[in-house]
Amino acid sequence: MALYAESLQNLIDALNRLPGIGPKSAERLAFHIVKMRDDDRKLLTKHILEVKDRIKKCAVCGQWNSSSPCKICLDEKRDRTLIGVVAETQDLAAIERTGEFWGVYHVLGGVLNPLTGVTADDLNINGLLNRIKNSEPPIVEVIFALNPDVEGETTILYLAKLLRPLKIKLSRLARGLPLGADLEYADEVTLGDALKGRRSI
Amino acid sequence: MALYAESLQNLIDALNRLPGIGPKSAERLAFHIVKMRDDDRKLLTKHILEVKDRIKKCAVCGQWNSSSPCKICLDEKRDRTLIGVVAETQDLAAIERTGEFWGVYHVLGGVLNPLTGVTADDLNINGLLNRIKNSEPPIVEVIFALNPDVEGETTILYLAKLLRPLKIKLSRLARGLPLGADLEYADEVTLGDALKGRRSI
Repeated sequence: MALYAESLQNLIDALNRLPGIGPKSAERLAFHIVKMRDDDRKLLTKHILEVKDRIKKCAVCGQWNSSSPCKICLDEKRDRTLIGVVAETQDLAAIERTGEFWGVYHVLGGVLNPLTGVTADDLNINGLLNRIKNSEPPIVEVIFALNPDVEGETTILYLAKLLRPLKIKLSRLARGLPLGADLEYADEVTLGDALKGRRSI
Repeated sequence: MALYAESLQNLIDALNRLPGIGPKSAERLAFHIVKMRDDDRKLLTKHILEVKDRIKKCAVCGQWNSSSPCKICLDEKRDRTLIGVVAETQDLAAIERTGEFWGVYHVLGGVLNPLTGVTADDLNINGLLNRIKNSEPPIVEVIFALNPDVEGETTILYLAKLLRPLKIKLSRLARGLPLGADLEYADEVTLGDALKGRRSI
């Protein structure tokens, strides 16, 4: 005997397919949705349906935003000789929140991942090459701001090999101890990176 | 300058209001929804909109399921002298999965919580009293299967006081060490309960 009504189980299954939502969270969300006011439930589905129609992928940098070219690509005050390469639009948002980056971005749309079948053809790499080759003013530096994990590192190596002949400065985010970290619990790679990248004070 | 397009921010905000979805998860889910196939996105909203119309609250036990009375309340093989009192339908499902309960259920629809303003009037307590008073065969035992936290304990105390005059057996789930627990890390209340409730072998 099925534990839940069919429509409820359908919703639980659909929520369970979303990233980061396990079976228990899906159950909890589904019951919350059951108890929501009708208006709120309609509003939620309206937002889900409208999101794609109302946003555009910027033809220059590849980020999802309200216009193409996006506001950042059109912003005259940005340093167009400096490109920050990120995997996804939310990584761009994370860097914008630091207030420490004044260049423009390039969103790859993912990272190389043989397990999930993401190859170089699936990423916005040709766009990056064309941008660098045709840029006026010429690009001075490309900063790879990808996650410090296997996929991110692989993607950096791949792109660095591709861009090396263009004779521009290539850099990556510093690795080291995050704020508030505990030396005792830091893994040896991170601690080694923090040592190698030590700064004079 | 807003980081995200309005429609994207609307979706992130709507997802962020769901239980257990923080700002970062909401961002991640929103971008997943942007990248979903149109069909899948429509299906998700269909499930969200349909769930409420297609399920009913059982008039007997109060659980959300496809019919009222629900299949469990109609099941002749169930022991109708034994009522398991749970807070929500998902708790009922959790107990059903154990295969260790053969009685019927009563879903309160929550627990007493002064912080969120849930009082006895908001819970399906009168339904429980009427069921017990009018039950044929008469109820022999009521098992409180509520979470072992402050709200659950308060609700058990409140209901026990209410049901005591009816002279039926009242019981609660055992507290003790969960399977795979580590004595060293168990809190003193749990360990004390495990000692008091020790079983001869």
